[in-house]
Amino acid sequence: MRAAIFQSPGSVVTQEVPDPGVVLPTDAVVRVTASCICGSDLWPWRGINKRGEGRIGHEFLGVVEETGDEVSGIRTGDLVIAPFVWSCGECVHCRAGWTTSCLVGGGYGSDDRDGHLVDGGQGQYVRVPRADGTLVAAPVAPDDARIPALLTLSDVMGTGHHAAVSARVAPGGTAVVVGDGAVGLCAVLAARRLGAERIIALSSHEDRAAIARTFGATDVVAVRGEQAVAQVLELTDGVGADSVLECVGMTASWDTALDVVRPGGTVGYVGVPAGVEGGLPLRKLFGRNITVAGGVAPARTYLPELLEDVLNGTIDPGPVFTSEVALEDIAQGYDDMDQRRSIKVLVRP
Amino acid sequence: MRAAIFQSPGSVVTQEVPDPGVVLPTDAVVRVTASCICGSDLWPWRGINKRGEGRIGHEFLGVVEETGDEVSGIRTGDLVIAPFVWSCGECVHCRAGWTTSCLVGGGYGSDDRDGHLVDGGQGQYVRVPRADGTLVAAPVAPDDARIPALLTLSDVMGTGHHAAVSARVAPGGTAVVVGDGAVGLCAVLAARRLGAERIIALSSHEDRAAIARTFGATDVVAVRGEQAVAQVLELTDGVGADSVLECVGMTASWDTALDVVRPGGTVGYVGVPAGVEGGLPLRKLFGRNITVAGGVAPARTYLPELLEDVLNGTIDPGPVFTSEVALEDIAQGYDDMDQRRSIKVLVRP
Repeated sequence: MRAAIFQSPGSVVTQEVPDPGVVLPTDAVVRVTASCICGSDLWPWRGINKRGEGRIGHEFLGVVEETGDEVSGIRTGDLVIAPFVWSCGECVHCRAGWTTSCLVGGGYGSDDRDGHLVDGGQGQYVRVPRADGTLVAAPVAPDDARIPALLTLSDVMGTGHHAAVSARVAPGGTAVVVGDGAVGLCAVLAARRLGAERIIALSSHEDRAAIARTFGATDVVAVRGEQAVAQVLELTDGVGADSVLECVGMTASWDTALDVVRPGGTVGYVGVPAGVEGGLPLRKLFGRNITVAGGVAPARTYLPELLEDVLNGTIDPGPVFTSEVALEDIAQGYDDMDQRRSIKVLVRP
Repeated sequence: MRAAIFQSPGSVVTQEVPDPGVVLPTDAVVRVTASCICGSDLWPWRGINKRGEGRIGHEFLGVVEETGDEVSGIRTGDLVIAPFVWSCGECVHCRAGWTTSCLVGGGYGSDDRDGHLVDGGQGQYVRVPRADGTLVAAPVAPDDARIPALLTLSDVMGTGHHAAVSARVAPGGTAVVVGDGAVGLCAVLAARRLGAERIIALSSHEDRAAIARTFGATDVVAVRGEQAVAQVLELTDGVGADSVLECVGMTASWDTALDVVRPGGTVGYVGVPAGVEGGLPLRKLFGRNITVAGGVAPARTYLPELLEDVLNGTIDPGPVFTSEVALEDIAQGYDDMDQRRSIKVLVRP
C-alpha cells in the first residue's frame, strides 16, 4: 500500500510500504477513505518537536476490511471513525472516560506494546488494535457529504469540545476562544453547542474569523497580546470571561488566556503545550482562583454524542477543511498548512 | 488597646496602639474575643516572605462594639465571625461568590484604599470595613464551647472546605489530603462532609494523624515523597485518587499531589504557594488530564453553610486548636507553631 512517511523536518513523502493485516484477534484493518493533517503533525515538520523517521497521521475514517476473531462491535463493510489514539474501552481509565490514559492503548504510526507496527493514519490502510474499544461506526457511505464533518470527530471537533467541557462552558455564559486553527474553530462550535451566550473568538485572519462567526462567535477580536486582553475586558465590562478555551499551547496564548479569565473562572486547554516555557504561574492562578482543566482530549468518549449531532445536523464542523490533497501529494498539504494557505487539509488516499 | 506587631523575622510583640473607631459609615468596630495565628503568619516570621513592621493577624471573632450609620445587617452586641479578608458583598465578584476578589475589599493589618488603617486580627479591637458584606453573626455567647470551632470559619475550615470543593470531592469518591496542618485537617473534615468514601491523609506526625482520623481519614500514610506516592497508589489499586487536596504549597507537596491523582482527576489547592519553584508542569497535567483548581478561599461565601453545620453539630473543627495563649504572650504562640509544639494556637485578647 501507499503511506506517508515522515523523513525529517520539511520532508514527508508518500511511498510503498507493506500492507497491514490482522495480527491480534482484537484488531481490525481499515481501508482509509479520508484522512487529514493535524496541527500537531506540523511541530515535527517544522523541527520544533524532534521525532524519528516513520509513519505519520492519526486522524482518519474508512471502511472495515477485516476483523480479528474477538472483534464483535464492528463488521467488515462498516464505515468507522477512528479517534486519534486507540484504546481498549475496558480498563479502569477507559471506563471512567479517559481513553487517552488507556492502560494498554497507544498512538498510530508506531509499535504497539507487543512490538507490532500500528500504521499511521496518513496511508491507505491501518491496522487498528482494540477495534471494539476504539472504532465507532457511522451509518453513512464513504462519499457522504458529511464525511469532512465526521472526520473532525477523529480529533479536532472532539478536542474543541474537550476545551469547552474543560472550561465549563455553560448556558448563558461567556467564552473566549484563544486560537483560530481547526481546533479553535471547533471550540467555538462546541461552546455554542453547550449554550454559551457570548463567544469571543481571537483571530487576526479574516478567513478564519469568518468561519468562527459561522460557527457561533458573537465577537471577533482581531488584535493580539495586551491589546486583545484590553478588548476582551472591554467586551466583558471589565470582568473577564467565565470560560477561556486555550487552543494553541504557547506561552503567549497562555498569558492571554490567564489575563482574560474572570476570578473564579476556568481555562480549558487542549493546545499541545509545545512552546510553554517555565510552567504555569501558580501564584497568578492562586490569587484569582483560576481553574486550569483539560489536556489530551478523550475523543473516543465524546464521539457518540458528537456523531449524533453531526448526523442530525446540529453541528457541521466540516468547514475547517479548506482544501484537499491526494495522498500522493501530501507534502503539498503540509506546506499549505504550514504557510497558512489552508486551515486544515483533507487527504484522499 | 493592645495589639500584636510584627517587627522582624522571629519577633512579634504585643504593644499599646490607638483604639480604633468608626471611620466610614460602612464600618463596624469589633471587640475581639478570640483570635489565632495562621500558618501563613509563620512565613514572614520565618523570614521566608518579606514584610514590613506592622499589625498582624487575620482570623478573629468578637462582639460588635459600634457600627457606622450605613451598617444594617449586624448590631452592637452581636457576636460576629470575620472572614480573613473583608469584602463588600455587592460587587460583581462578591455576587459571584469570589469575595477574595472583591473590587473594594482588602486584608487586615494594612491601610484600606482610603488610607485608613485596618487593624490586624491579633489585637483587642478591629475596625472592619464593609461590615455588612464581611461579618457574619452567630447566635452564641463569647464563652460558648463552640467558639474554637466557630473561629476556624474565619479561615482554616473555609480554606479546607475550598480545597475539597475545588478538588470536586463527591459522594463515594476517593480523596487524598496533602498537608497535616490545621488547613489539611479541616480539609479532611470537609472531604468527609462532602461524602468522600475513602480519605487518605498524609501525615508523619502521630498527633496530627490522630486528629485526621477523628475528622474522617480512613487511611493515614506516614511516609513522604516517592514512598507516599507508592503507598497511595497501592491503596487505590494503582489508579490514584479522584481528588487531591493540596494544603501545603511547596514544590514537594505539589509533586506528591500530581503523582497521586488519577487521570482525569482534580487537584484542589489552597496552600499559599510560598515555595513552589518553576511553575506547574503543564505537560504532566496535559497528558493525564489533571485539573488544577483552587486558590485563596472565599471564606465569606462558605461561612453561612459551615456555620449552620457547626451549630447543629455536624462538624467540629475546633480540635485544630491544640493550645491557647494570652495576647500578651503571643510570641510564645508563634514559637509553639513554628516548632510544631502546637498545630494551631488560639489567642485570647
